[in-house]
Amino acid sequence: MAEEEQIEAEEKDLIEILEPSSGPIDLARYVDYVRDPAAGAIATFEGTTRDTFEGKRVVELRYEAYVPMAARRLAAVCAEARAAWPVLRVAVAHRLGTVGVGEASVFVAASAVHRAEAMEACRYVIDEVKASVPIWKKEVYENGEVWKENREFLERREAAVGPVPERKKAACCCGSKVRVDEAATDGKISAV
Amino acid sequence: MAEEEQIEAEEKDLIEILEPSSGPIDLARYVDYVRDPAAGAIATFEGTTRDTFEGKRVVELRYEAYVPMAARRLAAVCAEARAAWPVLRVAVAHRLGTVGVGEASVFVAASAVHRAEAMEACRYVIDEVKASVPIWKKEVYENGEVWKENREFLERREAAVGPVPERKKAACCCGSKVRVDEAATDGKISAV
Repeated sequence: MAEEEQIEAEEKDLIEILEPSSGPIDLARYVDYVRDPAAGAIATFEGTTRDTFEGKRVVELRYEAYVPMAARRLAAVCAEARAAWPVLRVAVAHRLGTVGVGEASVFVAASAVHRAEAMEACRYVIDEVKASVPIWKKEVYENGEVWKENREFLERREAAVGPVPERKKAACCCGSKVRVDEAATDGKISAV
Repeated sequence: MAEEEQIEAEEKDLIEILEPSSGPIDLARYVDYVRDPAAGAIATFEGTTRDTFEGKRVVELRYEAYVPMAARRLAAVCAEARAAWPVLRVAVAHRLGTVGVGEASVFVAASAVHRAEAMEACRYVIDEVKASVPIWKKEVYENGEVWKENREFLERREAAVGPVPERKKAACCCGSKVRVDEAATDGKISAV
């Protein structure tokens, strides 16, 4: 990809990892960002804290991220979506810290000339956020809490590096957190 | 389907065909409608007027509908989505009258426990709105205007009743508008 194309693509993506003090995600900010006179379609996805998980009552979720790596991976996911679909603009926001029931933890918006392109790009981005971006979730129940990695994230990593031993999973409160060597990645971040 | 289930399903759908005097679609109204403590996912789709169509500069779009039939078909589409995916709530709004460049003409929101269900139901609803709901679009260009039926709508109807003769298409300003016998349908409308 030429340097100029890279810069243009980055200018059309808005990627924000929101610190715990930021409060609720301002959905309109991201929808307005992707709005474009050339767009015939805007698709969005909002991931919200639901009140039950596997029959247990969820009080809230808490998110932590290795922010530099998460932001770089988010930028790469947007670039991958651009390479696969002719999207006009993409915006992604992810909250860190506590997210109460009914509130949004993650929001994706994508615009395109045609609706299939916007919907497919939006779906790709959220699927990749869940499967490949190093953001961890703690589920807080009425009577306890547990760190969770998305099933997809675990499956993807196990496919790449082999299964995490059961003993190792059980020994650590945050189970399967991933440590990544920052210098080993080469993505660019358009906005954080 | 039992009577009680029918009523429950209808209560969870919000279907609105907005008169020209209503102004822009209040997107937050429909997103908030589908918000639910049991939901882990909200998917939305917004169809917007784009500034060009087949190389011509679009000034605005104008929508007309045979409202009773369009509302019934929208209600049926939501019921079909419910039958296919375990969605929690669905909301659909469609504007009539003039919709300027960049503005939304149609908005769909769907919530579900899991994201795939919300996104697939949302996609089904917008695809069916385009393919089977009798709402017609006039494209107003800088130097003229033309009534358009969505390509999908035309294809679906031709598959059902055979091709519309070219002569008949050309003879009428609004081309392939469909007349439906109101008494021949039996759908229910939850809200208009």
